[in-house]
Amino acid sequence: MRFKKKDILDIDSLSREEIAYILDTARGMKEISQRAVKKVPTLRGKTIILFFQEPSTRTKLSFELAGKRLSADTVAISKSSSSIVKGETLRDTVRTLESMTPDIIVMRHSSSGAACQVAKWVKCAVINAGDGTHAHPSQALLDMMTIQEEKGGFEGIKVSIVGDISHSRVARSNIIGLSRMGAKVTICAPGTMIPIGIEQMGCTVAPDMDTCVAGADVVMMLRIQKERQGSLLFPSEREYAALYGLNPARLALAAKDALIMHPGPLNRGVEISTLVADGEQSVILDQVTNGVALRMALFYLVSGGNKNADSN
Amino acid sequence: MRFKKKDILDIDSLSREEIAYILDTARGMKEISQRAVKKVPTLRGKTIILFFQEPSTRTKLSFELAGKRLSADTVAISKSSSSIVKGETLRDTVRTLESMTPDIIVMRHSSSGAACQVAKWVKCAVINAGDGTHAHPSQALLDMMTIQEEKGGFEGIKVSIVGDISHSRVARSNIIGLSRMGAKVTICAPGTMIPIGIEQMGCTVAPDMDTCVAGADVVMMLRIQKERQGSLLFPSEREYAALYGLNPARLALAAKDALIMHPGPLNRGVEISTLVADGEQSVILDQVTNGVALRMALFYLVSGGNKNADSN
Amino acid sequence: MRFKKKDILDIDSLSREEIAYILDTARGMKEISQRAVKKVPTLRGKTIILFFQEPSTRTKLSFELAGKRLSADTVAISKSSSSIVKGETLRDTVRTLESMTPDIIVMRHSSSGAACQVAKWVKCAVINAGDGTHAHPSQALLDMMTIQEEKGGFEGIKVSIVGDISHSRVARSNIIGLSRMGAKVTICAPGTMIPIGIEQMGCTVAPDMDTCVAGADVVMMLRIQKERQGSLLFPSEREYAALYGLNPARLALAAKDALIMHPGPLNRGVEISTLVADGEQSVILDQVTNGVALRMALFYLVSGGNKNADSN
Repeated sequence: MRFKKKDILDIDSLSREEIAYILDTARGMKEISQRAVKKVPTLRGKTIILFFQEPSTRTKLSFELAGKRLSADTVAISKSSSSIVKGETLRDTVRTLESMTPDIIVMRHSSSGAACQVAKWVKCAVINAGDGTHAHPSQALLDMMTIQEEKGGFEGIKVSIVGDISHSRVARSNIIGLSRMGAKVTICAPGTMIPIGIEQMGCTVAPDMDTCVAGADVVMMLRIQKERQGSLLFPSEREYAALYGLNPARLALAAKDALIMHPGPLNRGVEISTLVADGEQSVILDQVTNGVALRMALFYLVSGGNKNADSN
Repeated sequence: MRFKKKDILDIDSLSREEIAYILDTARGMKEISQRAVKKVPTLRGKTIILFFQEPSTRTKLSFELAGKRLSADTVAISKSSSSIVKGETLRDTVRTLESMTPDIIVMRHSSSGAACQVAKWVKCAVINAGDGTHAHPSQALLDMMTIQEEKGGFEGIKVSIVGDISHSRVARSNIIGLSRMGAKVTICAPGTMIPIGIEQMGCTVAPDMDTCVAGADVVMMLRIQKERQGSLLFPSEREYAALYGLNPARLALAAKDALIMHPGPLNRGVEISTLVADGEQSVILDQVTNGVALRMALFYLVSGGNKNADSN
Repeated sequence: MRFKKKDILDIDSLSREEIAYILDTARGMKEISQRAVKKVPTLRGKTIILFFQEPSTRTKLSFELAGKRLSADTVAISKSSSSIVKGETLRDTVRTLESMTPDIIVMRHSSSGAACQVAKWVKCAVINAGDGTHAHPSQALLDMMTIQEEKGGFEGIKVSIVGDISHSRVARSNIIGLSRMGAKVTICAPGTMIPIGIEQMGCTVAPDMDTCVAGADVVMMLRIQKERQGSLLFPSEREYAALYGLNPARLALAAKDALIMHPGPLNRGVEISTLVADGEQSVILDQVTNGVALRMALFYLVSGGNKNADSN
């Protein structure tokens, strides 16, 4: 297969075949990070700009390491250091970046749709590392990579996603991607955290958490993002934990070998109990490891990796 | 020619021949950033410290990419992370940096003359990336590179510079450099923004903007730097735009093929209208592209590039 | 000798032989930073994460350059960018970092014991770059390297350490390390800055500064760390300078060829006078230069350098 997408903006725009191809490529990349010399010359001489307008540790670091392990040059600009504080428009900022001839811009932005807009303005590849409440495709793809690794595939796999669906770009991207690959997605959250019409994305809404988790092959917990909410959408952390937290009792309702997933960072004792987070079924740290491999694959593919493989 | 300068501190200290040689070298560097593998081993094993005490996106990123594309190791320290917040003197900070054996220190500082002072304290090369209202030589050189590229040279070329000349190190460096190369520079600004005696730098002061722009081959607009001004030097942005903004009507007074330049970031609708900024005559993004090439040339030359060319 | 330590957490855990071996290795590394091409491929393809939860210029930059000169990939995360601000536990943060398969984590943290704790949680090497008031082993080792370089060894060398011993991890690591190598350490400070029982670390407490400095081969001044103290531990800077500052008169009491050391940044006129800091006996900048070499040695050794030397 020839991968032809210029950008990775959301999961909607990736076909079933493209998703499968990305996951295949990522599986091949994973081994590089296990070597004594964890670096290949594939993207030597390519420039990747990390343009993060929202704080991030793991996502930014994951993209940066992915770039470095492929021998690309990575440079970062953050909100505070950028000209946006001087009143520059987003279009001017990114066209300025483009004029320095990067091959890839990885961007995170607080506005939904920002990355899609930027991709139209610039000729280089754009990878969306999270835009508002819209999409976070690399996170969904690494989650899918982890499920595929553990379960062998997606067809008929029951995935439960629990948490603040309304504010979660991770949830949206996963619902779309997993449904497209044949999984059955059920979601659950307080009513204030479920957007109207979410079923049209291909998921079922469960009336309560026990129903949601029952028989699940994968339980994906979302972070309660206190820093994102303008107003309190639930009475208290304690009540949230009681009604929507994943604890051993609730986990017992799921399939015996159900996977526990979480995009991190964890609010231990709120959406997930420590026993569950650190238990044998947890693949939370595998998600992080797969994240680097998955992002290496994205860099490789949007660089036209499978047609212009470097020979040095 | 052998380039013998240890430092690049301002345009005053560069001869006509040195400026021409820097521009020639930069033209040669430009092609590297257009390659599929945009990296050469020229400065492999050299250390460049980016020491920016004022915020910057484009300048810092441009220097960083210039260093990386020549295979140098680049490291950055910013004001907030530096020991200056612990009360360390500038001399102690830079002599500490020097003790880590960098080859080049690129510095931006809010005090005019800071880079010249530092260059006396350290043996390694110092490149001034902007010091107070004094000089910004790499910006002026990239502007000159862009004019030379489009106009073929400087002799008799009419350049109009409009904006806050008093606070602009970009304007000072351009007035000196362009005059030295044979261009005729005319400036224009509200009276509060023109320093007394500016004509001694080799430029003419126009009484109003229409006179300034009339017949110009190049119109260089300066950013209204709100963050730099202690007090308001003009009545309002609206009045400033009316009297000193570049719009299509005013542009029509210039030569038909006049270039529009701006160091960025733009205040659209204030010093420059969107129609002009995005019009065919605008070379604003070319300036950014040339900036990387010009800084590669500076790194190469102060490293003694033309005498110690690496053989790997 | 085969160096077998996984981590460098403090000086206590290093034997006399291990310290000597580290200093030998660092001496060998020093020459690399003097070369025209100051880079060797030794750690190519290794990943080093710089995880600094307290501000730092010189230490972080020193580690970063040490990594780059050995061709390792270095990535940094700071407190503000990290998920700790989102309420993540330290254990979750470092296990997330570990899942990205770094070879070495260099960490600075405000809590004493943080690095030791982290080292138990992760399989990769951990280098403590300062934890609370506990230890700063790379600083002590570079200090010892500098003394060894100038004095030929440690046996019988008289070292005076003056300043805020209570809050100084640098002092603690030096007292332990220097004593272990055979030096005689005497300390001096206002009574509010000397911890009870400090003599058990192997040093003598002098009653006043003149006694402390008399006959010393090395005088190591500590920084008055205003930013670290909750309450004022001394009446005024002026009085501190008078009673505990190193000036030429006091220096005259030391051995004629006594070395003057300071970990930086300096408070000129407080703990050290400018004449002394810039005098011929000062090796303050040599300490900085040796810091890079010493950290290269630590990276090399904890990477299993002497068993897995790369052949590319």
